[in-house]
Amino acid sequence: MTEPTPMTRDELEAALRKIGATRYHNLHPFHKLLHGGELNKGQVQAWALNRYCYQSAIPRKDAAFIARTTDRNLRREWIHRVEDHDGDGIEEEGGIERWLALTTGLGLDPAMVISTEKALPATRFAVEAYVEYVQKGSMVRAVASSLTELFAPKIHEERISGMLENYDFIDESVMKYFRRRLTQAPRDANFALNYVLEHATTRALQQDAIEALTFKCNVLWSQLDALYFAYYSPAMIPPGAFRPDEV
Amino acid sequence: MTEPTPMTRDELEAALRKIGATRYHNLHPFHKLLHGGELNKGQVQAWALNRYCYQSAIPRKDAAFIARTTDRNLRREWIHRVEDHDGDGIEEEGGIERWLALTTGLGLDPAMVISTEKALPATRFAVEAYVEYVQKGSMVRAVASSLTELFAPKIHEERISGMLENYDFIDESVMKYFRRRLTQAPRDANFALNYVLEHATTRALQQDAIEALTFKCNVLWSQLDALYFAYYSPAMIPPGAFRPDEV
Repeated sequence: MTEPTPMTRDELEAALRKIGATRYHNLHPFHKLLHGGELNKGQVQAWALNRYCYQSAIPRKDAAFIARTTDRNLRREWIHRVEDHDGDGIEEEGGIERWLALTTGLGLDPAMVISTEKALPATRFAVEAYVEYVQKGSMVRAVASSLTELFAPKIHEERISGMLENYDFIDESVMKYFRRRLTQAPRDANFALNYVLEHATTRALQQDAIEALTFKCNVLWSQLDALYFAYYSPAMIPPGAFRPDEV
Repeated sequence: MTEPTPMTRDELEAALRKIGATRYHNLHPFHKLLHGGELNKGQVQAWALNRYCYQSAIPRKDAAFIARTTDRNLRREWIHRVEDHDGDGIEEEGGIERWLALTTGLGLDPAMVISTEKALPATRFAVEAYVEYVQKGSMVRAVASSLTELFAPKIHEERISGMLENYDFIDESVMKYFRRRLTQAPRDANFALNYVLEHATTRALQQDAIEALTFKCNVLWSQLDALYFAYYSPAMIPPGAFRPDEV
């Protein structure tokens, strides 16, 4: 069996962008409900506290990534992702702290949010699957799983304008997470895209990249599925999860 | 700080059984729809092929469990779980093969089922979370996560009688998985329960056992949540997942 011809750089980039165009969670009905002002405060609270699980796992995911590469330049580039989310506790608060400004602004107890005890099990399973994912397979796969950030600025812009406009319980001060990501995400995404395009030189590695980005879209999509199901329709909240009426 | 007084053996058993009584997935509406004959064939197919992900992961989960214990007696006891599911390919077909008899009997291509490509991402995340779970923390935690088998015979009996009675596309030959588990599950569950009651001698280990059984109930419950959401109501099938109308 001969090795199949690899895609060109442009073909691979087009294949990756097509995954975003068809599977990124900006296409999910829950996203449309959220930024379109169709949710009540309890539903927005549920979204914010579940999404905290994801935000707070990112530095573990990125540290696990760094832990497995012998490429010092790659480690040097990647470490700022950990710092962006964790902050330094002095000058830079970091993305997790900014997310907590959102959940606190929504009236949620930060200790409850940080515990993640009230998050949906489906959220935690999806998030931890992502933390595990970057620890296995090729480095191309691990890098490519971060490429959803290529599509993030658009969703952040929709969220900022939509949520500020449509909810009287949301103001500018709690939206600072998204404002900051508007500049951080493109830098990270461009580095990761270039890394993948440069290193995915065989069909097998290109397939790794495509599968990894699909996987990551599933991680994000399934989180919105779980929120839609538990809090919107049919609104069946699993045992032990956050109940807006009990806050 | 003094160590809190451990529960008695009976108190711990009661606490574990209470988790089953309030969180086991026989209480989930999808289970009731399934055995009550309220689903169409496509929905039963979706259930069977998603549940295959879980069935087929069990030997990996049990091997990962065996891989971490230095207790030879525990390994000797546990290995038959791997054999029960994998069979020997000669005299004993094993539980996975019996599950494939069900999916094939439902008209699904076994290669598609085995690939798990059409399963819901949420199913895969939950299943892999279970495989990871037994590899971390105390052995009590790892053993206790199997204790849902204490509650399994009841659900299997409901499934056998309900599905045979209510669906003309289900006959005795495809229900053999459940018949066999009626005898296998209690043996395993009794061993695991005794192990936990014997080894969970501190409050911390008892808490491990309680959390582990809760976790496992969440693994099972979230799989039915995902099926209900994707295939029953609001019937929003995620990108790439099984579509009954495309078989």
